[in-house]
Amino acid sequence: MKIVCSKSTLLKGVNIVSKAVPTRTTMAILECILIDASTDEIKLIANDMELGIETKIEGDIVERGIIALDAKIFSEMVRKLPDEDVSIESDSSFKTIISCGKAKFNLIGKPGDDFSYLPYIEKNTSIVLSQFTLKEVIRQTIFSVGFNDNNKIMTGELFEIDGNILKVVGLDGHRISIRNIEMKNSYENKKVIVPGKTLNEISKIISGNADEDVIISMTDNHIVFEFDNTVVVSRLIEGDYFKVDQMLTSDYTTKVRINKKDLLECIDRSTLLVKEGDKKPIVMEVKDNSVELRINSTIGSMREEIDIEKEGNDITIGFNAKFYIDALRVIDEEEIDIYMMNPMAPCFIRDENNTYIYLILPVKIKENN
Amino acid sequence: MKIVCSKSTLLKGVNIVSKAVPTRTTMAILECILIDASTDEIKLIANDMELGIETKIEGDIVERGIIALDAKIFSEMVRKLPDEDVSIESDSSFKTIISCGKAKFNLIGKPGDDFSYLPYIEKNTSIVLSQFTLKEVIRQTIFSVGFNDNNKIMTGELFEIDGNILKVVGLDGHRISIRNIEMKNSYENKKVIVPGKTLNEISKIISGNADEDVIISMTDNHIVFEFDNTVVVSRLIEGDYFKVDQMLTSDYTTKVRINKKDLLECIDRSTLLVKEGDKKPIVMEVKDNSVELRINSTIGSMREEIDIEKEGNDITIGFNAKFYIDALRVIDEEEIDIYMMNPMAPCFIRDENNTYIYLILPVKIKENN
Repeated sequence: MKIVCSKSTLLKGVNIVSKAVPTRTTMAILECILIDASTDEIKLIANDMELGIETKIEGDIVERGIIALDAKIFSEMVRKLPDEDVSIESDSSFKTIISCGKAKFNLIGKPGDDFSYLPYIEKNTSIVLSQFTLKEVIRQTIFSVGFNDNNKIMTGELFEIDGNILKVVGLDGHRISIRNIEMKNSYENKKVIVPGKTLNEISKIISGNADEDVIISMTDNHIVFEFDNTVVVSRLIEGDYFKVDQMLTSDYTTKVRINKKDLLECIDRSTLLVKEGDKKPIVMEVKDNSVELRINSTIGSMREEIDIEKEGNDITIGFNAKFYIDALRVIDEEEIDIYMMNPMAPCFIRDENNTYIYLILPVKIKENN
Repeated sequence: MKIVCSKSTLLKGVNIVSKAVPTRTTMAILECILIDASTDEIKLIANDMELGIETKIEGDIVERGIIALDAKIFSEMVRKLPDEDVSIESDSSFKTIISCGKAKFNLIGKPGDDFSYLPYIEKNTSIVLSQFTLKEVIRQTIFSVGFNDNNKIMTGELFEIDGNILKVVGLDGHRISIRNIEMKNSYENKKVIVPGKTLNEISKIISGNADEDVIISMTDNHIVFEFDNTVVVSRLIEGDYFKVDQMLTSDYTTKVRINKKDLLECIDRSTLLVKEGDKKPIVMEVKDNSVELRINSTIGSMREEIDIEKEGNDITIGFNAKFYIDALRVIDEEEIDIYMMNPMAPCFIRDENNTYIYLILPVKIKENN
């Protein structure tokens, strides 16, 4: 095989597919990036058997062929090459010469035959989102996905298509994050659970440009993301997702309208007094025109008042600062509404149209003041 | 005690003195920042017994007094306060209230009596450098200071005043970095060994501005840096420094003039093939109009040629890539001169006036090609 392409093109491609190279594996071939120039196109491919990425790069194919190169060494090499044309040439014994300017590297590659290509997917249901929308919806929900592999379903996010609405849900045992996105077209109903890891990697690869689209196709076992010159295929998580709708309610006895930035900064300050691993809750006391936030720990105490508009009853409720911070950070609105029932019931941060719903479970408080 | 100052002023001061707060200590009082408002000035002080920093901040003293506050909590607190005036108030039981805007923190402080103030230093020899020059000379030498506490003297840098020249030297067992700085005035001769840690912290605090000066005073046991509103006092390392001049020579049999950027990038690429912990040398073969750099490791091999101007003999010499990279990164010249004697003798990178001298020991090479 012999191909020639610019360093920047190659680097961009290598950076994309590297996201699917496993950090630890017993199969040495999976630690490689496959360069497939066996047809008229140059493709770079990596696959950790859960997540596979293929991207096409511009370049000249001088001699057709295939070679697999150690991903870590190859990608660091490309990164450090001078900004010129790169030639990659391999012979029948997989000896590979990478030359660029006056620099010449020799590496031993592996045959492509052992490599796991991306599975062929029969695409039935496909939706279209802008790269911006996909990147945003991942950012706005992914933090609440559970890490614990004991409950595999929690480590994924629900992608549910209902007509022209895409609903994305992430949850762990303490909170639920929901985003409803209106799409340009209506599609057949479909529900899948996408691994959190896949979504994390996708959001690093896509540009976030509102003018560029991603085509997302789902089958019973796979989800496929197609954008620019890249295809990402991921296995889905098997099983039924939690019945989230049953956990939601629009009833409330207290509604608080508050400035998001003020609340976020105040809660952020309170975390100073919470030692790591300590589950000390912050206390929110809703009064007529203000809410007082306070915390009392072994380190010290803090209290701060923020002006609010209130509807309904006074309430004193405790919560884990981190869960509030995570949710507030991804809400773009300046003013938000918090809905509460009682100190034991979940509280909801949501807008009127339910484009976002953040459910946070309260923490029981024992105050001595 | 009660003081009021702006958040930004307080934060700047806290950031400066924090550099002298020890990360681990058995004396809890050393983990504090002392706020000393017992006179007409507000001083912040921290001291780990090796390195002490005192800085004055602008503000109003409502009630004179002294309080010591846990450095970590206090500095994080200040960082997260809103951008308004901060009031710090402590009572006779060391209960401290920090308020800013609507936020109010309570902390328990410590009495200042136990705190170690900075030692009083009788200043004899004082020199003046710009903050820029001091910051630069530290950057250009500090990397070659040894880490091994078994040889305490190696963990420091020599500061030697000889007339109007300040010579700064750092070395470990494999290399020596020397910078000679011409000062505006001549001073009495003096030699001290300054701890590397002190220099690292100083270079983080000073602005690097060429128009602002640092006054450096040296006694037999201490070095004092005075700049802006800050005083830094550090213990010196006791003992006699290595006789560096005996290790230098201006003899050579090969002189190579080479583009610094080309050489640096080439050596940087070669490090790809060196596994961590592996001492695989890079081989430099000096020919008539070019130098070939090559490396052969278990990962693969690389070779690259760079154009040079040569004086003297051909030579093939091996060296540790990291030592060359460290030195080349801090040399500002576009073209540099490398002086060599034979494959076993140290090589020198230096300019004509010896404003900088980087001595690097070669590594023995066994090549099979």
